[in-house]
This record gives sequence, structure tokens and C-alpha cells, in this order.
Amino acid sequence: MTRSHATPAPVRNEADEPSSEVLRFDATQGLELDCGVVLAPWRIAYQTYGTLNADRSNAILLCHALTGDQHVANVNPVTGRPGWWETMVGPGKPYDTDRFFVICANVLGSCLGTSGPASRDGEGGKARGLEFPVVTVRDMVRAQARLVDHLGIETLFCVAGGSMGGMQVLQWAASYPERVFSAMPIAAAAKHSAQNIAFHEVGRQAVMADPEWHAGRYLELGTRPEKGLAVARMAAHITYLSQPALHRKFGRNFQDRTAPTFSFDADFEVESYLRYQGRSFVERFDANSYLYLTRSMDYFDLAADYDGVLAKAFKGTKTRFCVVSFTSDWLFPTSDSRAIVHALNAAGGSVSFVEIETDKGHDAFLLDVPELLETTRGFIDAAARARGLAPVKKADRA
Amino acid sequence: MTRSHATPAPVRNEADEPSSEVLRFDATQGLELDCGVVLAPWRIAYQTYGTLNADRSNAILLCHALTGDQHVANVNPVTGRPGWWETMVGPGKPYDTDRFFVICANVLGSCLGTSGPASRDGEGGKARGLEFPVVTVRDMVRAQARLVDHLGIETLFCVAGGSMGGMQVLQWAASYPERVFSAMPIAAAAKHSAQNIAFHEVGRQAVMADPEWHAGRYLELGTRPEKGLAVARMAAHITYLSQPALHRKFGRNFQDRTAPTFSFDADFEVESYLRYQGRSFVERFDANSYLYLTRSMDYFDLAADYDGVLAKAFKGTKTRFCVVSFTSDWLFPTSDSRAIVHALNAAGGSVSFVEIETDKGHDAFLLDVPELLETTRGFIDAAARARGLAPVKKADRA
Repeated sequence: MTRSHATPAPVRNEADEPSSEVLRFDATQGLELDCGVVLAPWRIAYQTYGTLNADRSNAILLCHALTGDQHVANVNPVTGRPGWWETMVGPGKPYDTDRFFVICANVLGSCLGTSGPASRDGEGGKARGLEFPVVTVRDMVRAQARLVDHLGIETLFCVAGGSMGGMQVLQWAASYPERVFSAMPIAAAAKHSAQNIAFHEVGRQAVMADPEWHAGRYLELGTRPEKGLAVARMAAHITYLSQPALHRKFGRNFQDRTAPTFSFDADFEVESYLRYQGRSFVERFDANSYLYLTRSMDYFDLAADYDGVLAKAFKGTKTRFCVVSFTSDWLFPTSDSRAIVHALNAAGGSVSFVEIETDKGHDAFLLDVPELLETTRGFIDAAARARGLAPVKKADRA
Repeated sequence: MTRSHATPAPVRNEADEPSSEVLRFDATQGLELDCGVVLAPWRIAYQTYGTLNADRSNAILLCHALTGDQHVANVNPVTGRPGWWETMVGPGKPYDTDRFFVICANVLGSCLGTSGPASRDGEGGKARGLEFPVVTVRDMVRAQARLVDHLGIETLFCVAGGSMGGMQVLQWAASYPERVFSAMPIAAAAKHSAQNIAFHEVGRQAVMADPEWHAGRYLELGTRPEKGLAVARMAAHITYLSQPALHRKFGRNFQDRTAPTFSFDADFEVESYLRYQGRSFVERFDANSYLYLTRSMDYFDLAADYDGVLAKAFKGTKTRFCVVSFTSDWLFPTSDSRAIVHALNAAGGSVSFVEIETDKGHDAFLLDVPELLETTRGFIDAAARARGLAPVKKADRA
């Protein structure tokens, strides 16, 4: 992929003219948000994979994480890299596109085509910046429900996702219990912890400290707070990994040298790696979207809408749940998943719970972790049988 | 304390004209540094408490942490607040100033009077900024040894400190084994982990991303990279606490409101607290010093000077060690302390090891943790008996 520096930054192209399918809602079809604003007009960009069956009973909605996008299993138009969940989604994969109709929409507030602070779909065709209303995970789910309506799907066979995606899964199960046959919240929590809010606040302050942020008006001014956003990403990235994984990958190895330089260069591999993570992130993500989406996670506290009792969020649920956590995930530790499981048990729900042993930290949900693939395959196959969905015959595979 | 905005920032006063005692070395008395530079002229600022006995055998050297200072047990001249270790140091306290002569020096590279990037003791009387050589923990200890020489002390009764202070303790025991009768490395490590280097790098990048940093020349230009330094402090501060402590102190409580504002204000108490931590830090600390001191910790790997075998650093040691860690410290976890203990055991050293149960995280070494006080008192009393130091009679106390 060659890219000329003269062309506009790709992140802005995808925010405005996404290469995905886009469902548009006009001024009369506004989206009611938790903050009280009715967002209109608005739009949602999405990808689908596989074929919806005649019963419309084989749809899987995948919900992406904070800086993820709808490009689950196709080349990402911004980065030119494979989709973020190609380990899980595709022909013969756990979310088998020979068998299921897989949907993933860019979340509200993001920057890959769905309405957000960087999209120019408001009045006057300007990027809305901080005039875009602050959205919640529930708002994201409301937006997805409008898409699912449009696709003519009454009940989703499964809603699945990791991290912020897992928050959306839980919100789906609570807001639309009858529309969710099965649900997989992975590396998630029913509420964001104080420590996680703290890390997000550091990231937001890093962005806002960058003078190129211009109180959120940088797109109008033709600039971007790249340094601040890179620092935010670096801090966040550490939280996605684990101490053992960092030790295993980098230890105290020097980068292209055998001794310290006694300077502030990136002497250590881990420094060089982090700087790269910061640099590459700013090429693909909008800084204001980062503010909005971290905020939505901070605000997430599912029990708060149910008298503070999480079990009430799942009262009478018939959804089949599979809750997954990872031993080395310190951002969304197993205790967070266990709290979800306890609430589901208290609500009399059907739930299986798997804690996967890995040193890969929170990022494990994105990586090729065999036990995650097996767990997903097993859960989905059993749910499909319960749903009366026939398995794919070998001969039918392309 | 009233302070006019017209007066120069206090941090610069203390960097240049410290209220502490200062020992000055001229051009002929340079300090050889690990980077190869001979630092000259240079100076070291320090505080003492109590009285050196006739044998000069009752001196305790306390080593401060990254953003600490020499003001252990007196009002801090910058902040107007009590000394940072008043729980531990004073008459009748574990480091009993009725009994011991307690010394604490500002570390090399810091900004409270010892030579560092903000001190105007180089050529031309300018702040040296990034022209100041990058220093190591061993360099800090070399500087302290020159002070201890000056004070006429051959053997220190004890060297103690937490975090970066604990690194200095370990370096003292390795570099000058015959001069250290007893040693207390608290919440420390013999080498800085990849994760810790990563967090430090985020902090440095935050400082350097601030345009007011001006490649380290901000003091010449009459400005300071306050926003970047505040972000660095916020990120670091999270690592000093623990998830349970943050949950206990703040949870998801709102700050002066009962519902979210759907904005980027500090809705949550934890956000407000972190912003305060950032703001107050920049009033007392120099941004370049922050770069230098984080770097010195990153470079710390005691075993590296001994063929990679930590036990060799303590070969033949006669020093009595007390190693202390805290259960909820994830920055310098107990496994780091255990590695020190294993090396001391392998070297045939005398070592006791205490892991203290607390949810206060890394910061526990600075706080009023009864088990730390008791452990220290017990260790110091036993060491004093072994050293032949008489206990203080009740009647002798003022």
C-alpha cells in the first residue's frame, strides 16, 4: 500500500466517507441518547460476513473495543492490515461465516464512519468536535439495535465482544433480553473500576494538554494533537499487556545497542515498542473519539440502572451466557467477570464461565489463544443446536 | 502559607539556594560518573537529625525515592508540609533521632539543592538542562559516599530507603559492603522491570511532548512544561496505589454531583484527585529532574555489574539485611524482593524478609503502616545491640 503525504489523513476519509456499508438516519429518525440529546441526523457504518438465513435466526453481532472498528475479518482500509478478529471470524472459524451472518458496526462516537466527533454529518458539514454529545455504552447499543431492525433481524443468535465490546454485550442482554439468544462478554466488566477510570483520565489529560487539540477544534484548523494522543495510547497500551508478557517479550533488552547510551533515546526495546505503538495509533484514530469512547467506558455501570443490583439487570433472562476472562488481565481481572457470573446465577440465568490461563494480559481476547477459540467454538456449537441451527456439512464448505 | 505569584517558583529557589546544608566540591574534586563524565563543580544538599556519637558509629543514611527529597523529618521548604518520613524518623520513632544520627541527602540529578539539570552550578551560572550528564543509582551512591566521608563516618550503622531509595540501599551494600553495617531495602528491586521502564517512558514522553519543554531549555526561557509533567505524574501516581485502595478510597463516587454531567469534567472523585496530584506535583518538582531520575531507575540492574549474577553483588557480605515488601505493591511486587532475598541467601548473607499485608500499594512505604514501623523498630534495635549501641534510657529523652 503506497500512500502519498499529499492526500488527507486516512482517518478522516473513513470518518466521512467510510468504505463500509452505511445506514443513514435523517432529521426525523433521531437517536435518543442518555444525555437527553436526540442525535439527528446520524449514521452507522458496518460490515457483514456470511449470509442471513431464511429464518433470520443465524445472526451474530460482534461488538468492538475502544479503538477497534467494524473491520473484523477484512483488510482494514486505514491500516491495510488484516481484520482485528480474523482468528475468530471466517469460514470454519469459531464465529463461522459459512454458517452465521456476522455483523459488526462501528460504535457511536468512533471515527470509522459511524457518527462521532470527527464525522462531518452534522449541520453545515463540519466535524462536530466537542459539540458531539457524550455517548454511553447504552447509546452504542441503541444505535446497533436500529441497525439490527433495519436488517430485519428480530433475535440475534449471539452478541459477543471483548473489553468495551463485552460491556456492549452485557448492555444488549439487559436492554433487549428477548433479542439476544446467546451472549459472550469476554474480558469485560459490568462497571468500570476506579483504576480504569484513572488510566482513562490520564489519557484524556494527555490529549487535552496538547496545544494542537485546540479545545477539540483541531480538524477545523487542519491539525491534530498527535503527541498527546500518542502519550495516551502508550499509557493505555501498558495496561493491555501483563508484567510477565512484557518481561517475556522485552525484558531489559537494549534496542540495537549493547550498552546504555546515557541519554533519553529509546535505549530499551520496550521503549522503542511503546513509541511505535503511540505513533501508529495516531495515524488511524481520532483524538476526540478517544475522549468520547474512554468516557463511555468510565460511565458504564450496568447495575446503576437497576437499583445498584446487577442481578436485576438480568432478571428473567433466557439468554445463554458464556463469560470469559484471562488470568493475567489486570485491567478487567477475573473478579470482574466473576461478579457478572454471580449476578447471572442470582438471576437464575444460564451461564458458563471460563477463566483462561495466559500471560498475554487484557489483549488476549484479540490474540490467537487456542483455549479462547475452543471455548467459543464449543459454546457457539451448543447454542446453535439449542437454536435449531443445522451444522455446516463438510461438502457445503467452499 | 501565603505565596505571591510574583516571586520565582519555589522549586527553582531550592534548586539554586537550598535551605539545607550544602557540601560543595570544586573543579578539582569532580565526581566520576558511570557515563564517563567527571562532574565538576558539584554539590550535595542534605539534612541531618540527632547527634553523631563519639565513635561515629550511630549514623543512619536514608535514601529518598524518585520525587522525594532530603526533608525527611522537617517542614518541607517548598510545600510547607511535614517531612516525608515523619512516621519513621524522630525522637522515639523507629529511626530514633534520640539515638541515631540520621542523614538524608538530595540525590544527584534531583532539584532540591544537589547538582542536577535545574541547578545553576555549572559554567556560566545557567541551569544545565539536558547538558547535565545522565546519572545512575550508582552515581547517586558515589555522591552520598563523598558526603559520608566529609562527615567523618567510616561505617554507616544503617542505610535504608524505599523504592528508588531501596535501589540506593542495595547499591551501597554492593559498592561499599564494609561501610554498611545494616541495610533496609523497602519496596525495592535489584533491577527495574520492563513494565516499570514502560511507565517511566510514558512519563518522559508526556514531558517531552509539551512544547513548553523546549528540548529541556525551559528554565532559560522562563517557562515550564507543567501540563506534560502533570500528565506524567498522574500516570505514575496510579502505579503507586493499588486497585483495592483506589476502589476503597474513590470507587465510582461522583465529585460534588449526583449524576454524570455527560462532559469531560472531572465527574468522578478519582479524576479530581488525580488532577490535583498532577497540579500539585508541578509546583514542587523540576521536569528535567523527572526525566533524569526516572532514567536512573530504568538503568538500575545491580546484577549486570556482576556477570548477571545478583548473588555476586553481595559476595562475602557481612551486612545485616532486612528486606520489606507489601502485598498490594504491583510496581515493585514481592517477587522483586524475594529475588533480592534469594541472592543474599546464595551469598550467605544475613537477611530477614517481611512481606507486609496492606492494600496501600507501593506508597505503603511512605504511610503509617504499623507493621512497617514495628518491623523497622525490631530490626534496628537488634542491629544496634549487635553494633554495641546502648539503648536510650527513658530518663535521657527530652
